[in-house]
Amino acid sequence: MVTKVVDLRSDTVTKPTDAMRAAMAKADVDDDVLGADPTAQRFETEMAAITGKEAALFVPSGTMANLISVLAHCDVRGSEVILGDASHIHVYENGGIATVGGVHPRTVPNNPDGTMDVDSIVAAIRNPDGALLYPTTRLICLENTHANCGGKCLSAEYTDKVGEIAKTHGLKLHIDGARIFNASVALGVPVDRLVKAADSVSVCLSKGLGAPVGSVIVGSRAFIDKAKILRKTLGGGMRQVGLLCAAAYVAVRDNVGKLADDHRKAKALAEGLKRIKQFAVDSASVETNMVFFDIVDPCISPAKLCQVLEQRNVLAMPASSKSVRFVIHYQISDSDVQYALTCVEKAVEELLKGTIKLEHLTNGTIKSSYGH
Amino acid sequence: MVTKVVDLRSDTVTKPTDAMRAAMAKADVDDDVLGADPTAQRFETEMAAITGKEAALFVPSGTMANLISVLAHCDVRGSEVILGDASHIHVYENGGIATVGGVHPRTVPNNPDGTMDVDSIVAAIRNPDGALLYPTTRLICLENTHANCGGKCLSAEYTDKVGEIAKTHGLKLHIDGARIFNASVALGVPVDRLVKAADSVSVCLSKGLGAPVGSVIVGSRAFIDKAKILRKTLGGGMRQVGLLCAAAYVAVRDNVGKLADDHRKAKALAEGLKRIKQFAVDSASVETNMVFFDIVDPCISPAKLCQVLEQRNVLAMPASSKSVRFVIHYQISDSDVQYALTCVEKAVEELLKGTIKLEHLTNGTIKSSYGH
Amino acid sequence: MVTKVVDLRSDTVTKPTDAMRAAMAKADVDDDVLGADPTAQRFETEMAAITGKEAALFVPSGTMANLISVLAHCDVRGSEVILGDASHIHVYENGGIATVGGVHPRTVPNNPDGTMDVDSIVAAIRNPDGALLYPTTRLICLENTHANCGGKCLSAEYTDKVGEIAKTHGLKLHIDGARIFNASVALGVPVDRLVKAADSVSVCLSKGLGAPVGSVIVGSRAFIDKAKILRKTLGGGMRQVGLLCAAAYVAVRDNVGKLADDHRKAKALAEGLKRIKQFAVDSASVETNMVFFDIVDPCISPAKLCQVLEQRNVLAMPASSKSVRFVIHYQISDSDVQYALTCVEKAVEELLKGTIKLEHLTNGTIKSSYGH
Amino acid sequence: MVTKVVDLRSDTVTKPTDAMRAAMAKADVDDDVLGADPTAQRFETEMAAITGKEAALFVPSGTMANLISVLAHCDVRGSEVILGDASHIHVYENGGIATVGGVHPRTVPNNPDGTMDVDSIVAAIRNPDGALLYPTTRLICLENTHANCGGKCLSAEYTDKVGEIAKTHGLKLHIDGARIFNASVALGVPVDRLVKAADSVSVCLSKGLGAPVGSVIVGSRAFIDKAKILRKTLGGGMRQVGLLCAAAYVAVRDNVGKLADDHRKAKALAEGLKRIKQFAVDSASVETNMVFFDIVDPCISPAKLCQVLEQRNVLAMPASSKSVRFVIHYQISDSDVQYALTCVEKAVEELLKGTIKLEHLTNGTIKSSYGH
Repeated sequence: MVTKVVDLRSDTVTKPTDAMRAAMAKADVDDDVLGADPTAQRFETEMAAITGKEAALFVPSGTMANLISVLAHCDVRGSEVILGDASHIHVYENGGIATVGGVHPRTVPNNPDGTMDVDSIVAAIRNPDGALLYPTTRLICLENTHANCGGKCLSAEYTDKVGEIAKTHGLKLHIDGARIFNASVALGVPVDRLVKAADSVSVCLSKGLGAPVGSVIVGSRAFIDKAKILRKTLGGGMRQVGLLCAAAYVAVRDNVGKLADDHRKAKALAEGLKRIKQFAVDSASVETNMVFFDIVDPCISPAKLCQVLEQRNVLAMPASSKSVRFVIHYQISDSDVQYALTCVEKAVEELLKGTIKLEHLTNGTIKSSYGH
Repeated sequence: MVTKVVDLRSDTVTKPTDAMRAAMAKADVDDDVLGADPTAQRFETEMAAITGKEAALFVPSGTMANLISVLAHCDVRGSEVILGDASHIHVYENGGIATVGGVHPRTVPNNPDGTMDVDSIVAAIRNPDGALLYPTTRLICLENTHANCGGKCLSAEYTDKVGEIAKTHGLKLHIDGARIFNASVALGVPVDRLVKAADSVSVCLSKGLGAPVGSVIVGSRAFIDKAKILRKTLGGGMRQVGLLCAAAYVAVRDNVGKLADDHRKAKALAEGLKRIKQFAVDSASVETNMVFFDIVDPCISPAKLCQVLEQRNVLAMPASSKSVRFVIHYQISDSDVQYALTCVEKAVEELLKGTIKLEHLTNGTIKSSYGH
Repeated sequence: MVTKVVDLRSDTVTKPTDAMRAAMAKADVDDDVLGADPTAQRFETEMAAITGKEAALFVPSGTMANLISVLAHCDVRGSEVILGDASHIHVYENGGIATVGGVHPRTVPNNPDGTMDVDSIVAAIRNPDGALLYPTTRLICLENTHANCGGKCLSAEYTDKVGEIAKTHGLKLHIDGARIFNASVALGVPVDRLVKAADSVSVCLSKGLGAPVGSVIVGSRAFIDKAKILRKTLGGGMRQVGLLCAAAYVAVRDNVGKLADDHRKAKALAEGLKRIKQFAVDSASVETNMVFFDIVDPCISPAKLCQVLEQRNVLAMPASSKSVRFVIHYQISDSDVQYALTCVEKAVEELLKGTIKLEHLTNGTIKSSYGH
Repeated sequence: MVTKVVDLRSDTVTKPTDAMRAAMAKADVDDDVLGADPTAQRFETEMAAITGKEAALFVPSGTMANLISVLAHCDVRGSEVILGDASHIHVYENGGIATVGGVHPRTVPNNPDGTMDVDSIVAAIRNPDGALLYPTTRLICLENTHANCGGKCLSAEYTDKVGEIAKTHGLKLHIDGARIFNASVALGVPVDRLVKAADSVSVCLSKGLGAPVGSVIVGSRAFIDKAKILRKTLGGGMRQVGLLCAAAYVAVRDNVGKLADDHRKAKALAEGLKRIKQFAVDSASVETNMVFFDIVDPCISPAKLCQVLEQRNVLAMPASSKSVRFVIHYQISDSDVQYALTCVEKAVEELLKGTIKLEHLTNGTIKSSYGH
């Protein structure tokens, strides 16, 4: 008998559906590095249309999508990018923009709602001609929804305002839209409207949308042409990649409609957690599919809580030394949410009683902090 | 009616078989970035065993496999790698080891058989303590089979000798084994024996083996641990990647046995081309699945020949300003070879007569030079 | 007649004294790239002794001193350095650690006194084995005195505490000690005590000390050996550099004793500025040779004030859109300070009256923001 | 009593003259990082005029001069530079263009006369739009005189031809003119004519010209503006650098006229060495101030010969495992040449007799291979 596991670590853990596998089984494919895969091309065209951009490019991961985007906009040595201090690009992508791209990150504090103050953005811009002492700002990055800020949505208006700043100063605007569909659904604003001001967007297909692998980058034709070269340089060019695109197509077709439900479940989960008095939960701040909560009782550490939960087949990861993150995706049912809540309650009880015996971690993933 | 196309551009153009698609349809997968995909893990274990190394890592492409390998061995700033001046890493991978990795390439001439003179390798090594004027040699790269040298095989003895040099000088040895199975079959030497002296090997799954996507890197556990971090940095970490591994598993299981046949067909193709007196073909030099030949008649350029062939649904790419490359893979039948030969003969005739009217190229790929 | 100019832009503007020129005229020199310049060697030995470190290296500038230090400590790809968000390395050195060194900067907010909260430093450290998602912290940088924080001094105790954190976490500690002698004099603590906890220190010779050119890096012998290679890589190895070292030797010998006087004059200048009601001056915060003040009257911009002052031969640079920086050095006399104050008063008057006509800037330097 | 040492290791070892020191003692200087040093500006203007370019920039070393030049021309990620496989930039500058600049070097074999075949250069160029597989060629580098090729001169005609190729293909041409004045004197062609086809030239002042420190880069105003930013990034901006420029000015004024004499002495030295039958000396190939010779007797290694010579106060460095390099500069007199020849003869005798006892090297410099 297979035990049901309720995996709340991330929305990256979904399993491909039968429909996706069926699509992969019959996809018409060819060598995409030679520019010949019809399924990849069709999917890229589709994603460009949905996001309102000229062109799109399928890449193996969200990390590569962001890395390529930043490098394409910052292709001249001595470039600086302005981004949030809690942004995924800055915090969780191995510092790749600097360590392999030589791009200088300049952070502006992220507000709890995922925005950066526009005044702070403007103050951070440095690109006069002939500046001797500092790198040249060439790019601003936003993140929508903002993972480290609890999955908050950036409004179209805010994004437009930042886009205006970028344009005024001759900069580009990139949106890490790993979960841009969640933002679109939560805000009730089409994706193309949300990213209208952006020169490029990375969209993850293997998070809430549930595709097995991949992200797309969208932008102008010229930008995507640059991105294609960078994809090759980094080793992200794949041969009969239409197989993955076929699955991603199904994901976009079938699962965007399910995101609203994910958000509802996340809210329900937050409401449930709120009843546990050892936790501080701001359920009003749950805008999409993520629930972050603080543990206010010093006897319970996030790491211990996650270990105890794992023993009951509920998987989660600490978000910091005093907080935990739960992420909902479409393969988590309402009863899974209830089961998880029950387990959390019991775990808290046991941890307070001190009756539980924690063995050495068997699952290395729990040690690590989460990413996207 | 679908016209049959005989695609001799590369062995990367094979289409996934029904068996591969079936394997993908039922593969048990999970989030591999979290280290949890059972199919990926099983496949990596398998590939480590076949190549006689401790561990393996699935990556999206051969370019990434080589890039990660070089960067993992050369993780200290100021590293130099010795490699062949005709090697794929140096010539066709966007200079990524320098442009994103900051590793300094130092080339040694490749002999026509794909080797570099061992004396030249030794002379190129520079790693005394405290050297002020030059980077520190940390790695030697070989390529087996050697694509730019006509698919030639490096013997186990030669590889051992270079491995000995590496060891003596405290260097690592990496083999770009994109087509190491072709070498193994042609030489009648098991892969693990062929790469025994290497600290790391990249093995392409989507060339002659016919997997839709991917390469593996193999090496020590410590090396693979480093490689895993670099894969994340470059954006090569993929979620439910077991789908691709399932297809790759079938490719290795089913298609290694067909490589000998590919080699036989390549030989036959070379013999056929030899009869065309406008060509210089050294059929004896065809050791594996590649046929390079020079066009000695100044009226026929490689680009023109390829254009005329394309009109007859035979695809190929110029290898240089006076040579053409044909590559055989298991989806090219004996009759395809005969058809291609017939088309080449006719194309030469027409080109000599000057009766043919060449329109602007409709297929951009033919313009570009080939890669792996 | 040469008009006397009171140059308050930076303490980098001092002119070499007769004693320095005399020392240069008779210095015994040789090819230092070949390791043979006796004057350079003597000076390096001296600076190592003064700072209590094993070895020292003369380099052309403070920027190179910091760049080499960070790169030497972070010689492995994927390194991260923790440093203040207002630090000179992060703000004014062209982002070189990222743009040429590929080192990822992770900033922690600088407090007004130049420190970073130790808790914030600890929270920013990320170096577990095998971390997949973030770079590895390898270095912490402090700046003493802290230029952007008004020339504030970091105490030996604070530095020790950060050194302890570094040691506990297996990190290195670098101090940008461009003005460490100012800190030493202001605190009454010997330099070697101040930097005891540091693995490396960069000391500028051409700021308050008045040497014409150069900085030294100090640290362990092994660190300096690495630094020497990096100096060559960056092109900072100079031939008969003993000439510059001879001047720097005189600077250290003659001018350290004058720093206390600089600090007294800076205080006097601040007291004088305080009387101008359009300014907000915190004279208590003047710990060394720098005076920063805000202009609270919206009719007077820093740029305009500096322009008017320039017409009266008082040179200064805006520090931000609403503040100005004056820097004292030993070639600014008490009467220069009084003259500057008189000019500032008059300039404010004129700017308020609106009687002044500002022509286009003739001196481009005033436009630019200051550096060290 | 000071023993006279005849230092033939390099022309970098000259000592500054009284005239240079006097010039330094009275030079009018200011902060050059702020763009205010009059002596530096005058010298740069002078060097721009001599070389026939718009602008010039003083930098600490030849290595930095080349590094800045390559980086300025290759400021876009993914750039490739074509340069000689024996060029100083490729062989002796720590691979800085790749290791800190991320520029991909593509070497073409250097002929014994320092040229590269123009056909080989053309064949190496790769810059079609949208190339996926290789970096984009943006620069060709020549070296004149060519140090590793025995100080050979490149003619104006050859340089023009390469310049033509560069222009035709939209590339830039940089000349490592560390010893361009030697070439000018040997060929009897003015420097500005020799470098007419070049977009940039680095000229070393501290080699045969005898300045204590420094090189200049010359090129268009736009190029020098870029170079100035890169100089700051690398840490090559120096404050009262007019001191060094004053000495360099004297070097150019006084010592260009002495280069012909250096060349004559080098020839005489070669003729003398030719008489030693254990050596293979091609005196006809001595075009400037360098003498390379092979040792054909297996009993005498270059390292041993240099050790024995050092005991007699003649300093030299091995050029390879079987050759030695002697370099003449204006502080080597005719009698020094004769003394050196006598010492070499005696050293050979003793080494052949085996009577000599070689202790451990006391002078580390002899171990190292030479650079410029």
